[in-house]
Amino acid sequence: MKRIGMLTSGGDCQALNAAMRGVVKTLANSDEKVEIYGFLDGYKGLIYSKFCMLTSSDFSGILTKGGTILGTSRTPFKTIREPDENGLDKVEAMKQTYYKLQLDCLVILGGNGTHKTANLLRQEGLNVVTLPKTIDNDLWGTDMTFGFQSAVNIATDAIDCIHTTAASHGRVFIVEVMGHKVGWLTLNAGMASGADIILIPEIPYDIEKVVDKIEERDKNGSRFTIIAVAEGAISKQDAKLSKKDYKKKKEDSPYPSVSYEVAAEIQERTGREVRVTVPGHMQRGGSPCPYDRVFASRLGSEAGKMILDGKYGFMVGYKNREIVRVPLEDVAGKLKTVDPDATIVKEAKLLGICFGD
Amino acid sequence: MKRIGMLTSGGDCQALNAAMRGVVKTLANSDEKVEIYGFLDGYKGLIYSKFCMLTSSDFSGILTKGGTILGTSRTPFKTIREPDENGLDKVEAMKQTYYKLQLDCLVILGGNGTHKTANLLRQEGLNVVTLPKTIDNDLWGTDMTFGFQSAVNIATDAIDCIHTTAASHGRVFIVEVMGHKVGWLTLNAGMASGADIILIPEIPYDIEKVVDKIEERDKNGSRFTIIAVAEGAISKQDAKLSKKDYKKKKEDSPYPSVSYEVAAEIQERTGREVRVTVPGHMQRGGSPCPYDRVFASRLGSEAGKMILDGKYGFMVGYKNREIVRVPLEDVAGKLKTVDPDATIVKEAKLLGICFGD
Amino acid sequence: MKRIGMLTSGGDCQALNAAMRGVVKTLANSDEKVEIYGFLDGYKGLIYSKFCMLTSSDFSGILTKGGTILGTSRTPFKTIREPDENGLDKVEAMKQTYYKLQLDCLVILGGNGTHKTANLLRQEGLNVVTLPKTIDNDLWGTDMTFGFQSAVNIATDAIDCIHTTAASHGRVFIVEVMGHKVGWLTLNAGMASGADIILIPEIPYDIEKVVDKIEERDKNGSRFTIIAVAEGAISKQDAKLSKKDYKKKKEDSPYPSVSYEVAAEIQERTGREVRVTVPGHMQRGGSPCPYDRVFASRLGSEAGKMILDGKYGFMVGYKNREIVRVPLEDVAGKLKTVDPDATIVKEAKLLGICFGD
Amino acid sequence: MKRIGMLTSGGDCQALNAAMRGVVKTLANSDEKVEIYGFLDGYKGLIYSKFCMLTSSDFSGILTKGGTILGTSRTPFKTIREPDENGLDKVEAMKQTYYKLQLDCLVILGGNGTHKTANLLRQEGLNVVTLPKTIDNDLWGTDMTFGFQSAVNIATDAIDCIHTTAASHGRVFIVEVMGHKVGWLTLNAGMASGADIILIPEIPYDIEKVVDKIEERDKNGSRFTIIAVAEGAISKQDAKLSKKDYKKKKEDSPYPSVSYEVAAEIQERTGREVRVTVPGHMQRGGSPCPYDRVFASRLGSEAGKMILDGKYGFMVGYKNREIVRVPLEDVAGKLKTVDPDATIVKEAKLLGICFGD
Repeated sequence: MKRIGMLTSGGDCQALNAAMRGVVKTLANSDEKVEIYGFLDGYKGLIYSKFCMLTSSDFSGILTKGGTILGTSRTPFKTIREPDENGLDKVEAMKQTYYKLQLDCLVILGGNGTHKTANLLRQEGLNVVTLPKTIDNDLWGTDMTFGFQSAVNIATDAIDCIHTTAASHGRVFIVEVMGHKVGWLTLNAGMASGADIILIPEIPYDIEKVVDKIEERDKNGSRFTIIAVAEGAISKQDAKLSKKDYKKKKEDSPYPSVSYEVAAEIQERTGREVRVTVPGHMQRGGSPCPYDRVFASRLGSEAGKMILDGKYGFMVGYKNREIVRVPLEDVAGKLKTVDPDATIVKEAKLLGICFGD
Repeated sequence: MKRIGMLTSGGDCQALNAAMRGVVKTLANSDEKVEIYGFLDGYKGLIYSKFCMLTSSDFSGILTKGGTILGTSRTPFKTIREPDENGLDKVEAMKQTYYKLQLDCLVILGGNGTHKTANLLRQEGLNVVTLPKTIDNDLWGTDMTFGFQSAVNIATDAIDCIHTTAASHGRVFIVEVMGHKVGWLTLNAGMASGADIILIPEIPYDIEKVVDKIEERDKNGSRFTIIAVAEGAISKQDAKLSKKDYKKKKEDSPYPSVSYEVAAEIQERTGREVRVTVPGHMQRGGSPCPYDRVFASRLGSEAGKMILDGKYGFMVGYKNREIVRVPLEDVAGKLKTVDPDATIVKEAKLLGICFGD
Repeated sequence: MKRIGMLTSGGDCQALNAAMRGVVKTLANSDEKVEIYGFLDGYKGLIYSKFCMLTSSDFSGILTKGGTILGTSRTPFKTIREPDENGLDKVEAMKQTYYKLQLDCLVILGGNGTHKTANLLRQEGLNVVTLPKTIDNDLWGTDMTFGFQSAVNIATDAIDCIHTTAASHGRVFIVEVMGHKVGWLTLNAGMASGADIILIPEIPYDIEKVVDKIEERDKNGSRFTIIAVAEGAISKQDAKLSKKDYKKKKEDSPYPSVSYEVAAEIQERTGREVRVTVPGHMQRGGSPCPYDRVFASRLGSEAGKMILDGKYGFMVGYKNREIVRVPLEDVAGKLKTVDPDATIVKEAKLLGICFGD
Repeated sequence: MKRIGMLTSGGDCQALNAAMRGVVKTLANSDEKVEIYGFLDGYKGLIYSKFCMLTSSDFSGILTKGGTILGTSRTPFKTIREPDENGLDKVEAMKQTYYKLQLDCLVILGGNGTHKTANLLRQEGLNVVTLPKTIDNDLWGTDMTFGFQSAVNIATDAIDCIHTTAASHGRVFIVEVMGHKVGWLTLNAGMASGADIILIPEIPYDIEKVVDKIEERDKNGSRFTIIAVAEGAISKQDAKLSKKDYKKKKEDSPYPSVSYEVAAEIQERTGREVRVTVPGHMQRGGSPCPYDRVFASRLGSEAGKMILDGKYGFMVGYKNREIVRVPLEDVAGKLKTVDPDATIVKEAKLLGICFGD
């Protein structure tokens, strides 16, 4: 008999349910008898012992369902070692829940923050298997995360819609794509939708280069320009600031986000009407795309196999088209960013896309 | 021989191309020889005599294409009688273009503002046929406008996406839907996506009622609440202000739009995390939905027939499932709003939807 | 207290769940206490007393879900008065279930066949309220049925996909659209997707006219032709046959359906490669479109209101944009077909669409 | 100055236009002056010297457009060395066109058959660069082909639609997915849509195993079963036949395709109603998905770079997330099939999917 605890943590995304279904189906199809404890709202459920017992049938029909049936929440890693408002030691509380329920293993689905806590639990002696969930595709140790391709599809749809209205009105349009630290989502959605300019955190931009591109297009008879801007896009000057100064500058900024700042600067320099659209949380919602459903199911299935084999302490990752086991200590705290010299960036530039650099 | 001028004016929307294709196909399939002059960027093209001659083949393959191949712009009706920056009399300029090209008729596709100018041109003696374009469905004299159903689909998709993430995080989510003066789009997208609260300009809201609904849901175990808010939603207090005072209040407001104000008020009263998503211009872009393609084609075809019959001075409308001719003087300057006592509103309330009234 | 029985019968379609949710939400939001008995698999459940008790929460979250949570089956009206294989009197059995459960009313969702049985039950003294479900939009007494617009969307998507491959290969392509007796679905999907030829049961076709159209397109440089064919399309010769002779001819035909016959005849006459695609049951599946969700919710809400008011014996219909109550005896046994002289057909012809007549 | 000939050959698919746009944009953004000759309808255009000169602007706006703006056709490799009906030597004719137009290189987009001819042309001394196009993903030497993911999406959508109707009616449903020789498309669409049984050419099936799975599901309360069947699925007995005997058996079969044979056998053995849906050519049509748009653009960009570098005789492929150059002689005549022991197959089995083996 195996007793498995499961939780989803951090911002939700598509295919969380598909991945959990994969784990549970694999366990249910084995000879092993399995009990599944679903912790509610991420690590909170583990800390405060809020869970429900789940059977195989709870995971039936959720392959195509967005979100997470377990609920999720953001529990910041930074304060995980600090007691909660009632003085409770959170790490101890999680361990107590684990041991009280006599769990064999925790299956944890999450992104960067989640993996730090997962690794901490591993260090504390708990058996942990994790699955790489994030629309940002920024987890170290895996070529791909689930949620990413679905988010690319939604962001691309958004830019596609903007395309027709931008062309009709001859406008400059900015679409702000999710991604505070990494630009994978913006880069892919931008390329997929034929954006003319793509601004990502990894490649600080010079606003003059952006303006040049718009004017070059104008001269060539293209009355409109589409700009895909990552939430975390940053100008060359700002990139030179210290973290503290940059944070302060942001706080003092009259603009709700960098997209509005870019819009204002273009407007000022060109006199052109510039509009901003922010699809926002839509990008992490809705039914997972077929790619993510297959991918998350495969990862889930491998996680199930690892549990049956008693292999713990790993994230199930994907490398060179093979499922791999990545030691948690290698994943936690690292970020997979877009290398400004990566082939895909070079290809995008060959296609005429301007990164403002 | 018929010489037809055609233009699209105001904010673009889906199925403008489908409608124009309908007109042109109908004319091309008649025995009449027809010349088509496409004016660029709305009334601007007519004023400044910027046009291109189009043949039937230019309209081939555009049934499914968003935007308008003619381009569009907003030319405010308020200043149409005023000379432009070079002292040009705009109305006279439009008439000159019309007569110089020896046009038999202008086909004008647009919404409320556009119809005011179209009616003015009619009064000035030009032959005009108009087509009802707007995602707002607020044109008087027609049950339906093209663009509306496509916009409903996009807004509904947006709320559907938000639904899964709201449920996963147990959040209150506001989706801001287009519509400054009328709530048709918000009402339909809200009902289609199972929104719990719908705020529209025609039904001023009481924030306490909104909060009550959220708390009632909470008590019944629904951890999340979806609110569809029209851009022009207004509180009961604000609805009592004079137009001038309201405008001033808006200008002084720290919130970019009413949605953010509603969010802040809920947050303050409930302590709940409230998020806002603004799909924005996406709602008027992308490929028209099948409903709009059929509808716009039908309207276009009837417009073509009217031109062949020499019937001018009408908007082609839709009433009780029949195509009708609505005199332009009846359309111009009126608005079709949501009656707070309309059956659809009552039905929505029966379904448990709160309008904050 | 009200005791309500509910069932879905006949081929399933989109928005059945949305409609039931509408009924139940409306009842749940009233002051009346309500018990809901869901009969499984259509009239079968009523005959054999197979049901489950449902609460409001069973209908939560199903607004966007295709199919029917109650299951459905086709119980032919023709044999409803005949005993089943065990000698059971089916009509009596249904009445017994009704009275044993002390039901106040049956809510029945279905199409033409379903309505005949519903009317029979009404004649037998049971309280019945029905809702018009069918992708065919062929129910008499209502301008619209739910499922229709969703099916139009799927059929249109199918033809859109075929469009690009037909154009690339310069092929004649036939897409077979559902509809054995009526052509609404084919007509709308054909118009929405820019089909060049549309063949529907109500307008018998002459294959020579079809071939002429293809050759005319060829001459004008259009290398491909898209034909939307209803399952029940019929040639002029076949339309002259007696029902019996036609049925026999069909049975003896080497072709799986009329589309393949049309394809063979075109191929023979033109030497052109003709391909057939049959989306089939896809057209009744998947998530309902926003139009259907709103529409079905509204109908459901009105049905709920009728139950609360104790108004029985009606189908909730839709006429001239108003919800109406249509006496069941007026609906049963009638069909709403496409009038060959209808405005929409004339408009389609003006657009250049050939009906083969 | 570079003179480039370009052609698309074989069955069309999504993202052909995106790939060509990638090549042309890359060349246009270089310092080199480039002339582009587009050959019409595949190798036919090269043989019969039917082409048009294209400029960069012809490739603008086609990123999202399905099909191929050059047209395509299937020219069988088997008879490429044989003279045409007028005695024309086809290979010589292609060479003549190439030399007469003084081409520097041919860019050829196609699948397996296309690559055989492309390699032949290389052997004949022409400069050739190819791009891997096919919804089957069966090209040797590349992990991925463009068109594949878009086709997976369409096939998955089809099965998703079927899912709701199968569940409502408690039916066994077969969806026939494209793929005569390889099962990648069926395998991925089947996994993405939660199919219960997947039959592919590489894993011959035992009908008894298929029936067992249906009955096992029945016993566990699942009233419906979804079966994804590749066009080229084959039973264990048939797999033992010689190629000739199998071909003969197929020709004599009363069934239009293997799906109908499987349906009949299940029906016979279980008495269950079994339905078949064949989405067919839809799978290669419509707008490419974002994944394919990015992927095809990247490949096109690399092909452009190769032309600028004068590197010929390669297919641009994708290996371990890197763009690679695969010698044409290695690609031609080989097939990338699903290994029955591949990890993805094992994972699918862990998830409970039956392959009938």
